[in-house]
Amino acid sequence: MHSSNSPALGRLFALGVGPGASDLVTLRTLNRVQRADVIAIPKKNADENRSFAWEILEGALAAPLCARKLWLWFPMSKNPAVTLPAWRQAVEQIVAELEAGRDVAFITEGDPSVYSTWSYLLAALPEQCPGLEIEVVPAVSSITAIPAVTRIPLADGEERFCVVPATYGIEMLPRLVQEFDSILLIKAGRMIPQLVSLLEELDLLDKATYVAHATTGKQEVIEDLRSLADDDIRYFSMVQISIRTRKGILGRTPEALAQAANE
Amino acid sequence: MHSSNSPALGRLFALGVGPGASDLVTLRTLNRVQRADVIAIPKKNADENRSFAWEILEGALAAPLCARKLWLWFPMSKNPAVTLPAWRQAVEQIVAELEAGRDVAFITEGDPSVYSTWSYLLAALPEQCPGLEIEVVPAVSSITAIPAVTRIPLADGEERFCVVPATYGIEMLPRLVQEFDSILLIKAGRMIPQLVSLLEELDLLDKATYVAHATTGKQEVIEDLRSLADDDIRYFSMVQISIRTRKGILGRTPEALAQAANE
Repeated sequence: MHSSNSPALGRLFALGVGPGASDLVTLRTLNRVQRADVIAIPKKNADENRSFAWEILEGALAAPLCARKLWLWFPMSKNPAVTLPAWRQAVEQIVAELEAGRDVAFITEGDPSVYSTWSYLLAALPEQCPGLEIEVVPAVSSITAIPAVTRIPLADGEERFCVVPATYGIEMLPRLVQEFDSILLIKAGRMIPQLVSLLEELDLLDKATYVAHATTGKQEVIEDLRSLADDDIRYFSMVQISIRTRKGILGRTPEALAQAANE
Repeated sequence: MHSSNSPALGRLFALGVGPGASDLVTLRTLNRVQRADVIAIPKKNADENRSFAWEILEGALAAPLCARKLWLWFPMSKNPAVTLPAWRQAVEQIVAELEAGRDVAFITEGDPSVYSTWSYLLAALPEQCPGLEIEVVPAVSSITAIPAVTRIPLADGEERFCVVPATYGIEMLPRLVQEFDSILLIKAGRMIPQLVSLLEELDLLDKATYVAHATTGKQEVIEDLRSLADDDIRYFSMVQISIRTRKGILGRTPEALAQAANE
């Protein structure tokens, strides 16, 4: 069907696999990995083909995949001299598959639009592959997995919530607690001691819940942040602060509600 | 096995069914509806057994459910004299099933922790049914379905995002755009004209994208909010504002990146 000798460009799927539990994968993500020729898997260590995203997905598969695995190294570093060449290589590896006409499914922990390695590929791929067809498949993210675990809704009615990396956003907290009903602090680990002091000052310590490894077998939920010893703190943890002063009808006192209902 | 004559209390599942597309349902939600004796379905109109959550779920089922349907009326009203008696009745209907020992699966559009009718049940049920076992199953929410559609990530690296109902939060916008990289305005419909003026003042109109009915067959994505005529505006729409000044490595200029990589 093609007039040139080169095959048509393959399609690219960016697939979220959810926060950790394999049964939180969606039907669409399963469908796309089954249709792909190549499954592109990010890994943190150059010399080890291991990936949490792959473990999550593998647990959801009813049968082994036909797709070939393509491991991509995304170093855990803030040094551009380390990350940039690795990202460039990951892009080249994907482009080579796409140009050979193969459909590639890139998988990522959580959701592709929320603190995902997918951002790095998206920044480079459309320019490298003009005309590339990309489908981003959303997933369950920690943003809703955490409140499902704590059983404290994020927002209702007139309420507002925000998501802030603890490492960069902690100085905003006194302002945020004025304006938001729920605050999710991600990557909270190292900041816990500082956060405990600040929440005590703000008289909000009892509104905060710590969750690590949500929805996995290693899940931890700690309601008293002061009880967290340094050794217990996980880097991949979140703190949900639930203030919720704008609950609408639910926020009113029982008396006010009864009166309103009788008006 | 029970010493008393009354059966053990049934379990309650609060199940998100995702933003609209049936294949964005998770394996866990499907598993739970298949195990439930009763499927509790919220409806907006008292005299019509219709529900978007049910339509989404039904499209994901491989076979008809054995569970009996229990329709619950959640009026679209801010008047407590209308909503409170209806919510109370919904709680009573669910409690009757649980007390008869039946497992109930309550389904909800999107995710149960984000602007869901589930909040109203959660506020009353634990008190009405001491010892009730509740499982909240998170789902794909519009919060990530919207950026999957626009293909603009919400956050990366040091970035922060927030979710605000347009009807209550628009006056905060000048402050929010200073502190957040992405802002999702939900229930944006009626506020669009006001929002367009405000975004023009802030010189951010080109950073905003309007999305209605995300992931469904009726999906609309409008990049120029000025082109939205009053008749085109959907009540259930969202506006994603993407500023993203804290992109980390990705936010640097190509020159700065090249220099950093060579350092």
